[in-house]
Amino acid sequence: MKEVYVSGAALTPFGKREQSLEELVREAVQNLKNGSTLENADEMDRIDAVCFGNMSGEKFTGISNLSAWVTDHLGLSGKPAIRIDTASSSGAAVFQAGCRAIASGQYQRVLVVAGEKMTHVPSVTATGILAGVIDPYERDCGCTMTALAAMVTRRYMESYGMTAEELALVAVKNHHNGSLNPHAQFQKPVSLEKVMDSRIIASPLRLYDCSPISDGAAAMILTSRPTRVRVRGIGHGTDHVAFRFRESLTSFRATKLAADRAYRMANVRPDKIDVAEVHDAFTSFEIIDTEDLGFFEPGKGVEALVNGTTQLDGELPINPSGGLKSRGHPVGASGLAQVVEIVWQLEGKAGRRQVKGAKMGLTQSIGGFASSNLVNILEAV
Amino acid sequence: MKEVYVSGAALTPFGKREQSLEELVREAVQNLKNGSTLENADEMDRIDAVCFGNMSGEKFTGISNLSAWVTDHLGLSGKPAIRIDTASSSGAAVFQAGCRAIASGQYQRVLVVAGEKMTHVPSVTATGILAGVIDPYERDCGCTMTALAAMVTRRYMESYGMTAEELALVAVKNHHNGSLNPHAQFQKPVSLEKVMDSRIIASPLRLYDCSPISDGAAAMILTSRPTRVRVRGIGHGTDHVAFRFRESLTSFRATKLAADRAYRMANVRPDKIDVAEVHDAFTSFEIIDTEDLGFFEPGKGVEALVNGTTQLDGELPINPSGGLKSRGHPVGASGLAQVVEIVWQLEGKAGRRQVKGAKMGLTQSIGGFASSNLVNILEAV
Repeated sequence: MKEVYVSGAALTPFGKREQSLEELVREAVQNLKNGSTLENADEMDRIDAVCFGNMSGEKFTGISNLSAWVTDHLGLSGKPAIRIDTASSSGAAVFQAGCRAIASGQYQRVLVVAGEKMTHVPSVTATGILAGVIDPYERDCGCTMTALAAMVTRRYMESYGMTAEELALVAVKNHHNGSLNPHAQFQKPVSLEKVMDSRIIASPLRLYDCSPISDGAAAMILTSRPTRVRVRGIGHGTDHVAFRFRESLTSFRATKLAADRAYRMANVRPDKIDVAEVHDAFTSFEIIDTEDLGFFEPGKGVEALVNGTTQLDGELPINPSGGLKSRGHPVGASGLAQVVEIVWQLEGKAGRRQVKGAKMGLTQSIGGFASSNLVNILEAV
Repeated sequence: MKEVYVSGAALTPFGKREQSLEELVREAVQNLKNGSTLENADEMDRIDAVCFGNMSGEKFTGISNLSAWVTDHLGLSGKPAIRIDTASSSGAAVFQAGCRAIASGQYQRVLVVAGEKMTHVPSVTATGILAGVIDPYERDCGCTMTALAAMVTRRYMESYGMTAEELALVAVKNHHNGSLNPHAQFQKPVSLEKVMDSRIIASPLRLYDCSPISDGAAAMILTSRPTRVRVRGIGHGTDHVAFRFRESLTSFRATKLAADRAYRMANVRPDKIDVAEVHDAFTSFEIIDTEDLGFFEPGKGVEALVNGTTQLDGELPINPSGGLKSRGHPVGASGLAQVVEIVWQLEGKAGRRQVKGAKMGLTQSIGGFASSNLVNILEAV
């Protein structure tokens, strides 16, 4: 694939926001304009196309044809605009679609945006909308995302001897990181006791093991013109939607396929990665993700967590942003928000959560119940 | 953009089908496998990725993460899969996304599929779902797609003196063409009298001026390897979603922008086109489309219709397939079905509706109420 570069990356604050979906996207793009990485102020007028990542906007907002809608609200009516959807990894998928749009030579400068507006509906409604990704038979049997995640977690605990206290350290770490992130939904550290005292959602998962329902948007410009951050590799993999047909319950095949493809395109091995943002919609996922990405052997992700390897000052910081757990999880936006964080880390702009000397960063995003996962690798040049 | 070729194109029969969305997509792909243009039988095993076009599948079927879902049902689980949505032009948009995927160099062989399942819901429910593309304020004022199309038609009649009988000739022509198309939802010719006697849906539009609600799917393989059909140009344009902010009511800016971009990439002028499939969701749209595409001057599209220029044996046959009007309009599939028809025409495989000597063909697809339109140009090589 031809070379693709990032020229500017921005977020809205994530959380419970009053704004509509299109207002959130506009705010992210306004923040992008205000950022200093843009070549100059009129760069927005010279973009060739808009790619919009979104999971369930039709259901959450009642509005269809959302790419034309947000493009119109950005004052960019006339520009080509498409929506990309791979469920909760849509933000990562739209990043990859933007990369292809540049690498194809059709466009020189693409605005990639992603957003989701969720908190205005009752949480039971949101949970119902999100459950649309579950195999219909399993859904009819009563499976929710959290119930499936609980099964994965239980199996992992039994296979590898992870304790509930060890699992809780993911939340403790990520809330600490989130406390250093002004865009995060939760900016307070939490203690191990607080996590362990929180109510059970689906045993063994407690409230602090689950990412929140959130509003937010992310924006980025991709270009063929060299900048300080280059896209080194992108990869995508899928798996059976039905949970009962999976080869493994403690590893996600879609992540492994995506990682293999991204590493191959990047021509690097996992040990070259300095910092990673991974999909911790549930805390156990972070541990599994770090194993599927080849950072640690199967069953050894917990050890890396417990011994501090994945902390902000550890050897391989995972989720310096606070992750989905603490930054928040506006489903269609999260995958792009991860890339934004990595861009900031590579540019040395991550403030109090800056990972020192980060030269190569990775993102991993999970779509649905790990049926459509993506991995992106970026490097500072 | 690097060169992209079509290797195989197929449809399901369109109409009221008993099958589910994923079954329809699988049927289209099975027809693709059975087609003779594939290099060989195992070509499907060697595809690199799946691109799925769909408008409102989440609302019509209750299933999210549809690209992983259909990919799983195709037996292709593991392959990268994304969904593209630009409302009723999604089929054209996924074709263009597939082209970029090839031209980018990331993939060598991409399976592009598009489908929609609509007829299982009551037609009032379907109309409500489709109205999601209308500006919310205008929707709250009672606008439906047909009401907006009626306003466009009325204005066109007043601006250019078109009569109701002249307009009715679009339906007569397209139902004639559809009668020659074994994939069409309606395979019976209709007389001018029958069109004029049909009930008013939104004055001046009658039943036969409106495309039906349909089920169906289309499939195609795009490749970097030279075949008999090459993609010559692709273009996309958007417009204000709100109808009240449009510059013109008798011309669609999104089409003009898309056409301009596609002609520029193809480096051809409109007079080089031998055959075209255009978006006749309402009969008046076909006339406007042929003007926006530069085939005829504004207000002169009617004349071309009346004097037979756009008939199957005319100088520039429009909608040889029968168009959305007669082939049917499964909204997310139509844009790709148009491309399938053009591929068949260029390969000389269009049977009784074959346009003689067709060397270069064009498709034009409308997303939402003409807020996201696309133009594709293909040529026989």
